[in-house]
Amino acid sequence: MTTPIRFELIKTCRQTGARLGILHTPHGSFETPMFMPVGTLATVKTLSPEELKEMGAGVILSNTYHLWLRPGHDIVAEAGGLHAFMNWDRGILTDSGGFQVFSLSEFRRIEEEGVYFRNHLNGDKLFLSPEKATEIQNALGADIIMAFDECPPYPATYDYMKRSVERTSRWAERCLKAHRRSNEQGLFGIVQGGEYEDLRRQSARDLVSLDFPGYAVGGLSVGEPKDVMNRVLEFTTPLLPTDKPRYLMGVGSPDSLIDGAIRGIDMFDCVLPTRIGRNGTVMTSEGRVVIKNAQYARDFTPLDPNCDCYTCRNYTRAYIRHLIKCDETFGIRLTSYHNVYFLIKLMEQVRQAIREDRLADFREEFFERYGFNKPNAKNF
Amino acid sequence: MTTPIRFELIKTCRQTGARLGILHTPHGSFETPMFMPVGTLATVKTLSPEELKEMGAGVILSNTYHLWLRPGHDIVAEAGGLHAFMNWDRGILTDSGGFQVFSLSEFRRIEEEGVYFRNHLNGDKLFLSPEKATEIQNALGADIIMAFDECPPYPATYDYMKRSVERTSRWAERCLKAHRRSNEQGLFGIVQGGEYEDLRRQSARDLVSLDFPGYAVGGLSVGEPKDVMNRVLEFTTPLLPTDKPRYLMGVGSPDSLIDGAIRGIDMFDCVLPTRIGRNGTVMTSEGRVVIKNAQYARDFTPLDPNCDCYTCRNYTRAYIRHLIKCDETFGIRLTSYHNVYFLIKLMEQVRQAIREDRLADFREEFFERYGFNKPNAKNF
Repeated sequence: MTTPIRFELIKTCRQTGARLGILHTPHGSFETPMFMPVGTLATVKTLSPEELKEMGAGVILSNTYHLWLRPGHDIVAEAGGLHAFMNWDRGILTDSGGFQVFSLSEFRRIEEEGVYFRNHLNGDKLFLSPEKATEIQNALGADIIMAFDECPPYPATYDYMKRSVERTSRWAERCLKAHRRSNEQGLFGIVQGGEYEDLRRQSARDLVSLDFPGYAVGGLSVGEPKDVMNRVLEFTTPLLPTDKPRYLMGVGSPDSLIDGAIRGIDMFDCVLPTRIGRNGTVMTSEGRVVIKNAQYARDFTPLDPNCDCYTCRNYTRAYIRHLIKCDETFGIRLTSYHNVYFLIKLMEQVRQAIREDRLADFREEFFERYGFNKPNAKNF
Repeated sequence: MTTPIRFELIKTCRQTGARLGILHTPHGSFETPMFMPVGTLATVKTLSPEELKEMGAGVILSNTYHLWLRPGHDIVAEAGGLHAFMNWDRGILTDSGGFQVFSLSEFRRIEEEGVYFRNHLNGDKLFLSPEKATEIQNALGADIIMAFDECPPYPATYDYMKRSVERTSRWAERCLKAHRRSNEQGLFGIVQGGEYEDLRRQSARDLVSLDFPGYAVGGLSVGEPKDVMNRVLEFTTPLLPTDKPRYLMGVGSPDSLIDGAIRGIDMFDCVLPTRIGRNGTVMTSEGRVVIKNAQYARDFTPLDPNCDCYTCRNYTRAYIRHLIKCDETFGIRLTSYHNVYFLIKLMEQVRQAIREDRLADFREEFFERYGFNKPNAKNF
């Protein structure tokens, strides 16, 4: 049996240790470090597959929990799987539903068997387990699927985290056993352990012994400060095999993408670019712009003077502000397009900097220009 | 002085009298009969200019009243006019604001001078007159602008309608006098008169004597039965010069487009395709489809088996139903795209039928297939 997911390490940045690689999937090969746009409900909000392709998106993420509830994984399977259902022929990664169970639902009860909880839409009782999450993901048919884990909140006590990590390891093994399409879908394990170095080590050791084709670092970007995230990455990524891809879940702010790459991360996903885009906030090479602000009412320049995306080539801040203020859908199409493009191009720049062994320099230049070095700088 | 808008009559259908023509504008020449998608706030809801072009849209309509309030015609003018503001280099027609004053605002008071009313957004007192409506339209810079008229409700008494028609004629003359860009923008007159034949005759005579480069038939599609609309068109269009374009305002249901063309109409506009699209209703060659209905949950066929639009080439009813039920923006992009495409292609078919002198036959075939001949058939 050959794994459907293969990682090729091209080079390591001499200045930072960041990795340039290629992720080979059944739906194409894509350079890393990469940012994966999120298509929660089998659509990256407001954008078409063609638009994502013209930006250079390779792998997108979709959410098992949400698709399980709507339209139902059986319908997606009947459509021929997620790729056919949503008209996307590049890579797809589905999460396991674990994160949504812990972030969206109330009244959850965690047992060894799995998690009992209530549907966030209508309150119906539901149950998700390693076997069920894997079955759903097998039906959805993504290229990369994720083990069902517990994602504890931040902060969590050491004792709670230790029990959780051990259960997540047992669940990971059950996911592997339940996986029915290992020739077509690569199942990644998720390292947990919060901010506790020895628990991260324990989790990584458990999972690496199961020989997954890729590993995620989970339980970060859940409210902890940035320096905690960076420290955890610093002691966690060295625990993972160099010949497997490493995926930092739920991270998409420009500073964290660069800082994650510097710490050996290859893959990222986040709703950030589309979510803030819908509120009229855009990321630019010169920092963030809140387009509803009155100062842009007569600003006939593009969102970002240094951007060559569809939005910036064709529309002004004044026009986009007008659309967003009028709740016009085309406005959030334009801001979402720009923001996703911005992160995809940022990762291209990161890869180029790795090629040139100057990612630390690039980080400094980018942070300075974006405003991350200012006191009280925002996250994005 | 040459008029910026010129109409070229190519041929008349021997079976129906419908006209095939070409409308020449400062932003291109477009075949008629044509359907103009509506971009109320300088955007055809959910769609990009490129998408409208690939469908074959020639002229789009935008609303003076709405743009006056948001973002303000001064900002649009500063952007270089509506074409530059919204990135659309084909034709644009702006209405005069008259219809919105009468349909949206409360507390309106009609004087000879103009109309006093309140802003539908925040209740501010506003005043619109022939001079003001023309000034705003001159600032917006559309290829075709409309005279400021009164659009009385249906039904209106003969006496009310007579006074209204006479005032609309006086207002039309004031619009002509106020028009400052007659080399760049063609000003159309609007024939009113409700269902009263002699008042339509009076209105047409008044306006034709002012020699506009085009004429609209207004005051229809305001709640009257279809046979009333058809009868009014039958006695109104013959009153208009054959060498000028005729525009039926606010009409976009497939049956009325065909019936209007048969009665000598060249141009139509309506929010219908985008409005019903946002509610998940689509027009197909086999009748309307309400995509939210449960019967489509596992329907993996396109919206319309006979359509070659982007939506129908790439997506299934099951997928679109899923998106619409989840309030996903991409769902209303897909339905809006299909519906606008449907009407633009319908007009292509109408033009082809005129070329072949068989528009009455086409009407019968289309009505039968769409379901308009069924008892209790819906409007669209």
